[in-house]
Amino acid sequence: MEAIGVEPGGTRPRVVDVPRPDPEPGEALVRTLRVGVDGTDRGIIAGDHGSLPPGEDLLVLGHEAVGVVETAPETGFERGDVVAPTVRRPPTDGGNEFFERGEADMAPPGATVERGIDGAHGFMSEFFTSPASSLVRVPETLACWGFLVEPVSVVEKALELARASRSSFDWTPQTALVLGNGSLGLLAVAALVGEFDVYCLDRRSRPQPGIDIVERLGGTYVDARETPLPAIPDQHEPADLVFEATGYAKHAFQSIEALAPNGVAALLGVPDSWRFEVDGGRLHERLVLSNRALVGSVNSGPRHFRRAVDRIGSFPDWFPASYVSRVVDVDSFSAAFEAGDQILKTAVEFDSS
Amino acid sequence: MEAIGVEPGGTRPRVVDVPRPDPEPGEALVRTLRVGVDGTDRGIIAGDHGSLPPGEDLLVLGHEAVGVVETAPETGFERGDVVAPTVRRPPTDGGNEFFERGEADMAPPGATVERGIDGAHGFMSEFFTSPASSLVRVPETLACWGFLVEPVSVVEKALELARASRSSFDWTPQTALVLGNGSLGLLAVAALVGEFDVYCLDRRSRPQPGIDIVERLGGTYVDARETPLPAIPDQHEPADLVFEATGYAKHAFQSIEALAPNGVAALLGVPDSWRFEVDGGRLHERLVLSNRALVGSVNSGPRHFRRAVDRIGSFPDWFPASYVSRVVDVDSFSAAFEAGDQILKTAVEFDSS
Repeated sequence: MEAIGVEPGGTRPRVVDVPRPDPEPGEALVRTLRVGVDGTDRGIIAGDHGSLPPGEDLLVLGHEAVGVVETAPETGFERGDVVAPTVRRPPTDGGNEFFERGEADMAPPGATVERGIDGAHGFMSEFFTSPASSLVRVPETLACWGFLVEPVSVVEKALELARASRSSFDWTPQTALVLGNGSLGLLAVAALVGEFDVYCLDRRSRPQPGIDIVERLGGTYVDARETPLPAIPDQHEPADLVFEATGYAKHAFQSIEALAPNGVAALLGVPDSWRFEVDGGRLHERLVLSNRALVGSVNSGPRHFRRAVDRIGSFPDWFPASYVSRVVDVDSFSAAFEAGDQILKTAVEFDSS
Repeated sequence: MEAIGVEPGGTRPRVVDVPRPDPEPGEALVRTLRVGVDGTDRGIIAGDHGSLPPGEDLLVLGHEAVGVVETAPETGFERGDVVAPTVRRPPTDGGNEFFERGEADMAPPGATVERGIDGAHGFMSEFFTSPASSLVRVPETLACWGFLVEPVSVVEKALELARASRSSFDWTPQTALVLGNGSLGLLAVAALVGEFDVYCLDRRSRPQPGIDIVERLGGTYVDARETPLPAIPDQHEPADLVFEATGYAKHAFQSIEALAPNGVAALLGVPDSWRFEVDGGRLHERLVLSNRALVGSVNSGPRHFRRAVDRIGSFPDWFPASYVSRVVDVDSFSAAFEAGDQILKTAVEFDSS
């Protein structure tokens, strides 16, 4: 069968022929519909991260997938069920407590592999197999947008951690500030506008489709070149919740300045090492005297996937089609890996039925 | 009646004669037993923080008090009840939602005054009044150590926020690292040793009574001059919980390096402005990829006071008497404000009965 593979940091991705996988007991064989592309995929191609499965010479890409169950004996799934797979799997030397309790997203580095990213093949192939416990049902009506379940689940997990951090007191947040109007930031804006007054900060110039989407969702776009992050409380409002989706390391620290008292910043970016100066005394003091918090969040688990399915169902009808810039078939797959200011979200389509 | 007052940053504290307060309806008149002294008091004397009550020319000090109810009509308290008062009160322009729901500790700066610290007289006087809702019962057997309820409550609130931040997943912490073996750090060690393997880091040399207490409690003292904070995971263990009680701003950031995956650092120190360089990219990445968190915590509320009463009851019998270096009467009060490596905790005694 066809798959899209890459040697991380080496070759460009290419279509390769790989054997169709055979499901083990407890696994489903899934026919792939669409697989989304994000910055992690581009980072693997560039060699910034990612690793080959043991003994393999290329990595099948893709960690944002939706597919249709082909066979899944004794798993609770039936042929025809639409499903989205979670990303983390036990390392080859076996499972661990995090997998046993369905919280692989909390497994430390080394206690997990990540399909399509680190040490395990991804979902960019005509078929894939997965343990049924790592598949989440997607309503048939959302099948064509089911590749958004994974990135939305990453938003849901970060929100869960952020809310939990404020759960010991009466917290009634009103204002959210999303850092970055890229593909993840826009999903956060879409998730938050129902409950928050949402600001979204980036450095992009109009016309840009991500800015249009922020505004159509009811959010306020803030150009960081005019209003830097620490100025947002004065220029707009302090944020009860900051959602960082830029990977710009200074944002982790400037977020503290942008928070309202008792606010929390959820950090999702993964920057490289970068030394810079901060007023560490002031940041420390501001965290303490106003009970502020920073929470880092990575990956997501089955319960976040289930919430993501509900969330996508609640998005405005126009949103997915506006947010997804292009869906290309396997023959044109390389167009899905192009990035640019006018491209929001892309996917590769393996099967449309 | 006698009180100990100060002009913040001006005069040394002195014994002054002030009118005995009359309780308003809903308030209790409390005869003061003992009032503890901490770094905040010394900071007020030095002029680092603190402010006078409106229209007053000195501030009665003291925010760590225990006393005996003298009169408290229609409050649920009776003459002879031992009580500890919380610190925050509504500003003179009236209460707000934080006070209404018993969470004044979450009130932002400006929405509260603090008795003995900011804009309201403290408890270092023969008598004080307090709304009954701001008093917490202390068992008679703990009356002489009841001035520890306030500082222990500050520990309890920080632990509550830290645990809440980890409540969305299965968190089974084993190792705690307390930064600072000063008066607050030692209370944290005493609170944590029942549940955690506790390390306590400071820069003090033996012989020092705080080091002896850490070890007698079953904790491990770490000399930061030999093992700096970021080296603790390699030299000892990564910490599931860091409890920062130094006010040393670099600790807020180095804590991230000392945390285990999924760990949380509770920050309690209040440093001055201090610019320094950090590897912000690495810290940001470590927060994200291992789901780490930082939570700031200030002050404490009635529920933390109640938990503190229980906690003090669970301390080893030897602990309070070893921890409290000196209790002096009003005539010798200035000895209670002396600080030094051999002095852990001090208090002024107004009445011993």
